[in-house]
Amino acid sequence: MATEHTISVFVENLPGVLVRVAALFARRGYNIESLAVGPTEHPKYSRMTIVVGLDTSVDQVIQQVKKLIPVVEARELLSERERVDRELMLIKVKTGEGGRAEIREIAEMFRARIVDVSATALMIEATGTPDKLDALEANLAPYGIIELCRTGQVSLERGPTPITTHEGEL
Amino acid sequence: MATEHTISVFVENLPGVLVRVAALFARRGYNIESLAVGPTEHPKYSRMTIVVGLDTSVDQVIQQVKKLIPVVEARELLSERERVDRELMLIKVKTGEGGRAEIREIAEMFRARIVDVSATALMIEATGTPDKLDALEANLAPYGIIELCRTGQVSLERGPTPITTHEGEL
Repeated sequence: MATEHTISVFVENLPGVLVRVAALFARRGYNIESLAVGPTEHPKYSRMTIVVGLDTSVDQVIQQVKKLIPVVEARELLSERERVDRELMLIKVKTGEGGRAEIREIAEMFRARIVDVSATALMIEATGTPDKLDALEANLAPYGIIELCRTGQVSLERGPTPITTHEGEL
Repeated sequence: MATEHTISVFVENLPGVLVRVAALFARRGYNIESLAVGPTEHPKYSRMTIVVGLDTSVDQVIQQVKKLIPVVEARELLSERERVDRELMLIKVKTGEGGRAEIREIAEMFRARIVDVSATALMIEATGTPDKLDALEANLAPYGIIELCRTGQVSLERGPTPITTHEGEL
């Protein structure tokens, strides 16, 4: 099984930046397992968190990503011990006969929240490491999963230091 | 201010699919405000949730997205009342003198969790609508935000019906 690499990319908000970064991975045939792009502490910049699974190093592609104009910084977040990985999942499950109480119990065990209730289904919001979300999904699968949506992983390093020291640049 | 459009795209996991979808938006000069790609209920498929802000309709670009080979379904999720929007944020804040207790109190009010503690900083995990995360960030800003990372919004429609009725196709 391929190793997972978590890459954090700090970019300027410009149309096309996402395409240019993703294209560098696609050109090498790397399959992006998850990608999350959202706002940062600076309104002009976004952070992309990319997870790719492959056996070789990702150093070369990171060097290429860094050379793109709207990219301020790109780094692999190395050790799983030194970083916090989180993902969010919305999952809609069939309640069936008597299923509702059991599903609520499973949700509680995973510290997940019921966010929508209808006659035949429940929607649950859960956060955690990707592995934890996989486990929740496996526990809910017997009831019938109607659909689910996951954000992809985001990560920050533990401790007081930021990934990107951009003070001088912004 | 431009209206926000939330688009849900159900795609086959193939290298390059993300680039092809994002390129359709970039070619029209649409700036993607957030994008989240993650696994779904089917191991061979991913769901992308894309938020773009613009004044015109997004129907035309959705029609183009649908024509891409690895795309199974693409739809705008229309009414904010009829859907659940969620996003996850990791945010690292300076604690300073006496700040730690106050920051913990703010985190509690937002039902957020402390996920890392160091001598001079706290890391908080929070989920909610994008607006709620903006409000949390604004409350923490006076203490000094070291860095933050957001997943981008994901959305599912309320009620028992899935966005994609793909039973026959998978």
